[in-house]
Amino acid sequence: MDAQSVLSLDNPIFRLYANYGAAVTLKMMCLSLYVSRIRITRKVFANLEDASGKQKYVRNDDDIERGLRCHRNDLENVIPFLVLGLMYVTIGLSVFAATWHFRVFVASRFFHTVAYLTPLPQPCRALSFVIGLVANISMGVQVLMNGTF
Amino acid sequence: MDAQSVLSLDNPIFRLYANYGAAVTLKMMCLSLYVSRIRITRKVFANLEDASGKQKYVRNDDDIERGLRCHRNDLENVIPFLVLGLMYVTIGLSVFAATWHFRVFVASRFFHTVAYLTPLPQPCRALSFVIGLVANISMGVQVLMNGTF
Amino acid sequence: MDAQSVLSLDNPIFRLYANYGAAVTLKMMCLSLYVSRIRITRKVFANLEDASGKQKYVRNDDDIERGLRCHRNDLENVIPFLVLGLMYVTIGLSVFAATWHFRVFVASRFFHTVAYLTPLPQPCRALSFVIGLVANISMGVQVLMNGTF
Repeated sequence: MDAQSVLSLDNPIFRLYANYGAAVTLKMMCLSLYVSRIRITRKVFANLEDASGKQKYVRNDDDIERGLRCHRNDLENVIPFLVLGLMYVTIGLSVFAATWHFRVFVASRFFHTVAYLTPLPQPCRALSFVIGLVANISMGVQVLMNGTF
Repeated sequence: MDAQSVLSLDNPIFRLYANYGAAVTLKMMCLSLYVSRIRITRKVFANLEDASGKQKYVRNDDDIERGLRCHRNDLENVIPFLVLGLMYVTIGLSVFAATWHFRVFVASRFFHTVAYLTPLPQPCRALSFVIGLVANISMGVQVLMNGTF
Repeated sequence: MDAQSVLSLDNPIFRLYANYGAAVTLKMMCLSLYVSRIRITRKVFANLEDASGKQKYVRNDDDIERGLRCHRNDLENVIPFLVLGLMYVTIGLSVFAATWHFRVFVASRFFHTVAYLTPLPQPCRALSFVIGLVANISMGVQVLMNGTF
């Protein structure tokens, strides 16, 4: 494969990146809907205009705080994956290595969400967080090792 | 157009992506300045060193909390747009479909910010949020439908 | 260099982008570890299942709040850099201009983290924030000036 088509669907590694990346991004966005659903069913709002002007519905809720922490953890980890993954595609390593980096990361984040929202007893969530972080750092270090500053 | 130039300004869809993406990203960053301006004019700080060491200025403010929630909602929605949009460019659909996905998303987010900060009565903000989310999910699903796992 | 290879390591500007981008992304992810370390050593947790079920360890801590604010500020600035930087690579300006945009931004964010966590007296942190923001806005505006809507 010639260098020009690295970031296109002709490159099987980019194709994998696009698929796994889109799947984990859609998963992340579903957390918005999860939190919204709790807000509406339990009448727990952050803004006065959402609560039909009733101050008593502007309050906190443990499950909503948990959902927001889960979403924030996703932002802190999934977005670096999406960026580092794209750079990782360009350094042109084997399809095998790329596939397993993407699979392990995406599986760890799906499990992380389940572990956070259920919640499962620790160290389920901690382990899934660390596995995703290691996959990210591995990709980042490989990009840096191909680098010139 | 040949496959190699998918992610370059030779591709009109990528050009649209870059323009709309840069516009909505700059809009998102302006929320930092909006919050900073309120912090300085009202002397409401999050860190002791920002408040010239005066503990009484380390406090909360409703409008700042509102600005932070608006900014966070942008992070949760605009960044997935930027990533899914890039992938969406590579699957090479029509310029027409891409233009309208980008236009609708970016317009919905500009309106969302206005609706959040004014604030406009609901369901203005809820509607603009849902419209942006639908555009994102539409792009994400189309990427996945082109996929192999 | 022909247009097709804009987003590949054959393009020295993309190579710089990948290196600086990976470095600042890895730095950002280290903030997760920084906060986790404080949580474990001081027994300050956000979730009951992390605290071995002991409610007294589910509490707040000033240094953790500071770390979370620092991380959030990184998300609000580093991620726009990664996106705008990628678009900026495609408009094909000089290696010199690109190098200094990337260097200034990345240096400002490393300094910002040090200034936030030490904490250094203001205006150290404010200046580093503004320098990074100016680099981002400069890239964003140059992308927009190459644009068609």
